[in-house]
Amino acid sequence: MGLIVQKFGGTSVGSVERIQHVAQCVYEEKEKGNDVVVVVSAMGKSTDQLVNLAKEISSQPSKREMDMLLTTGEQVTIALLSMALNQKGLEAVSFTGWQAGIVTEPVHGNARIIEIQTESIDAQLSAGKVVIVAGFQGITENGEITTLGRGGSDTTAVALAAALKADTCDIYTDVTGVFTSDPRFIKNARKLLSVSYDEMLELANLGAGVLHPRAVEFAKNYNVSLQVRSSMERIEGTVIEEEATMEQNLVVRGVAFEDEITKISVLGLTDSLTSLSTIFTTLAQNQINVDIIIQSTTEMGNANLAFSIKSDDLQETISVLEDHKELLGYGQLSAENKLAKVSIVGSGMISNPGVAAKMFEVLATNKIPIKMVSTSEIKVSAVVEERNMIRAVEVLHAAFELANIEAEVN
Amino acid sequence: MGLIVQKFGGTSVGSVERIQHVAQCVYEEKEKGNDVVVVVSAMGKSTDQLVNLAKEISSQPSKREMDMLLTTGEQVTIALLSMALNQKGLEAVSFTGWQAGIVTEPVHGNARIIEIQTESIDAQLSAGKVVIVAGFQGITENGEITTLGRGGSDTTAVALAAALKADTCDIYTDVTGVFTSDPRFIKNARKLLSVSYDEMLELANLGAGVLHPRAVEFAKNYNVSLQVRSSMERIEGTVIEEEATMEQNLVVRGVAFEDEITKISVLGLTDSLTSLSTIFTTLAQNQINVDIIIQSTTEMGNANLAFSIKSDDLQETISVLEDHKELLGYGQLSAENKLAKVSIVGSGMISNPGVAAKMFEVLATNKIPIKMVSTSEIKVSAVVEERNMIRAVEVLHAAFELANIEAEVN
Repeated sequence: MGLIVQKFGGTSVGSVERIQHVAQCVYEEKEKGNDVVVVVSAMGKSTDQLVNLAKEISSQPSKREMDMLLTTGEQVTIALLSMALNQKGLEAVSFTGWQAGIVTEPVHGNARIIEIQTESIDAQLSAGKVVIVAGFQGITENGEITTLGRGGSDTTAVALAAALKADTCDIYTDVTGVFTSDPRFIKNARKLLSVSYDEMLELANLGAGVLHPRAVEFAKNYNVSLQVRSSMERIEGTVIEEEATMEQNLVVRGVAFEDEITKISVLGLTDSLTSLSTIFTTLAQNQINVDIIIQSTTEMGNANLAFSIKSDDLQETISVLEDHKELLGYGQLSAENKLAKVSIVGSGMISNPGVAAKMFEVLATNKIPIKMVSTSEIKVSAVVEERNMIRAVEVLHAAFELANIEAEVN
Repeated sequence: MGLIVQKFGGTSVGSVERIQHVAQCVYEEKEKGNDVVVVVSAMGKSTDQLVNLAKEISSQPSKREMDMLLTTGEQVTIALLSMALNQKGLEAVSFTGWQAGIVTEPVHGNARIIEIQTESIDAQLSAGKVVIVAGFQGITENGEITTLGRGGSDTTAVALAAALKADTCDIYTDVTGVFTSDPRFIKNARKLLSVSYDEMLELANLGAGVLHPRAVEFAKNYNVSLQVRSSMERIEGTVIEEEATMEQNLVVRGVAFEDEITKISVLGLTDSLTSLSTIFTTLAQNQINVDIIIQSTTEMGNANLAFSIKSDDLQETISVLEDHKELLGYGQLSAENKLAKVSIVGSGMISNPGVAAKMFEVLATNKIPIKMVSTSEIKVSAVVEERNMIRAVEVLHAAFELANIEAEVN
């Protein structure tokens, strides 16, 4: 007997059949004697369809009206899921974000949750009902409808789990858990039974996109026990919690990778004291995300700078830099395309100084040149040529013995 | 300078292009210096699509969840219209039913408006913005989302006009106004410049379906000046107000008609005191709408009964009556199909006792047999054979000189 928050994303509720399947998952949890709160996203492509309607009308629609428009998507899903639960003989009640008491800051498109007033949900749970909450949305103190931005439904689920003091928050996805690497590419990748919040944050940021980083951060701050699991198969997923309890001896817990990276080199910066901040402020103002940044100073007092971006942003990055050449005061500009980032992640690294060295050695032994390097306490990333990416992941996955961990396979 | 409430139905907002056209109508009204509140329905067939989704899940979905589901339709339209107005350089703000302060009784699917708390709308109008309100929906005092049932958006518009003390409430439709008869069938039908609430009520109930009777009743109770007009053509429509100011000398103001009527005869009812109420209670419980009812008593103390129904309901009516034959206690049952109802409507009838007689005479002269008759203070209806319907309308339209009235044609 406990309280479970379940979250189902857009693919999991993409059709009437999928919604009926979700109803079955909820039914089984309820049968175990648990109270259940379900958070759902908009059905499959419905958000995209709404965005397209808006784009037909305006290239820059008002953010307030986009929130008004997009929040209808989850509202459709909660109503249909509630009906599907009724069909199974379960009493259910659906709540929009505002009905669920999800109060956010007065910002449209990317609001943060300030608090959750749980009275309405509490009352319905006490009455024995399944409560279905529209993810991704909230309300300001002035009654304006807001959305939480990307990963919003994950955040809604985690925030509700925290506010309701739920025993666990199950994030249902189309994969069975978090893996040591992407099983679509690395054939002996293993499912991890547990990872820590910080490891999950690094993995999520690195494109192992089963869970939005913001939701993981929220879970970490409120110590919410999360589980990533499959909506299709009834097997244990991966638990995300303060300290990964299993496989404690594992220094590296996963190898993540991401292609379509471009390295930009800016040579001969004249005034390195202010030019660095000027460059990245200018890029940020133009919505260009920069990942790894390396700076070195030459003996003549000039600075050289290299940073990595998504290849998609190449054209705009170049034109922004060229437009501001005089202001930024640099000599030469060059770009190297078709790169990829390979990263090893694990909390155990903190107390194992040799991990980065081992990574470089493994790559060198396999004749894979490293273009850039970046490190954090629990992660080492290396930028390599795109054509070497999968092989780099394979040799690292093998070298850190990730295929040998005692977890379920797939 | 005044305050105008404009209402656009589902067809008028059925596509991005139509929504942009609506934005133009709003823009022109605003340009005249008026404050504008716009009420819109869901886009074209979107409500039907949502209903179909629900039906795939449940044959009898919860009414609460149907309200949750269907209210998303208008919410999509208000957001898109607001964006379209922004594109035209107008400041606009969209409100769902609950944001607009439309409080209803705690009934799902067919709630009545209790009050409108206009503070939010007032504030936005004062700030010079166009306010767009989702029609058809409201909220209970407990924060439950409700819908107003059929004709709900018309009712929202009229209720808002009453609460905001608007100067007029313009109902935009795909016709240019209210006509002396249906111009698709009666070629010299004329558009009326004005009709009274009661006349409109009779015309609306008789299938001249430009305006929902409930909205007309609301307008009558709160003395809201209504105008039915075209969303495609910029011409005056028909004003609906307390006393039709023009054409005061017109005894009959319109000829309405409706086909697919069936007459049911129930002969030899043994106990006329209770059987009448039993029959119609039983039919009502089976959702069968009865229109005209005629009862006569035979010399032997038995009663004969005839009533009219929609032909679609024939099978069910017969089986309901046969299933309850013992309870109802009648002798014989018969049905006459392929009938139609032709009605003349006009406030002037009250003081003109010869109007009904003239109608019967005109039909007799033209050899059109009358099957049933029903009268109210401002209406006389005759049931005739379907094949005679249009001819009956034509001869009545001519006899009451409706083609001669001095109103714009079409």
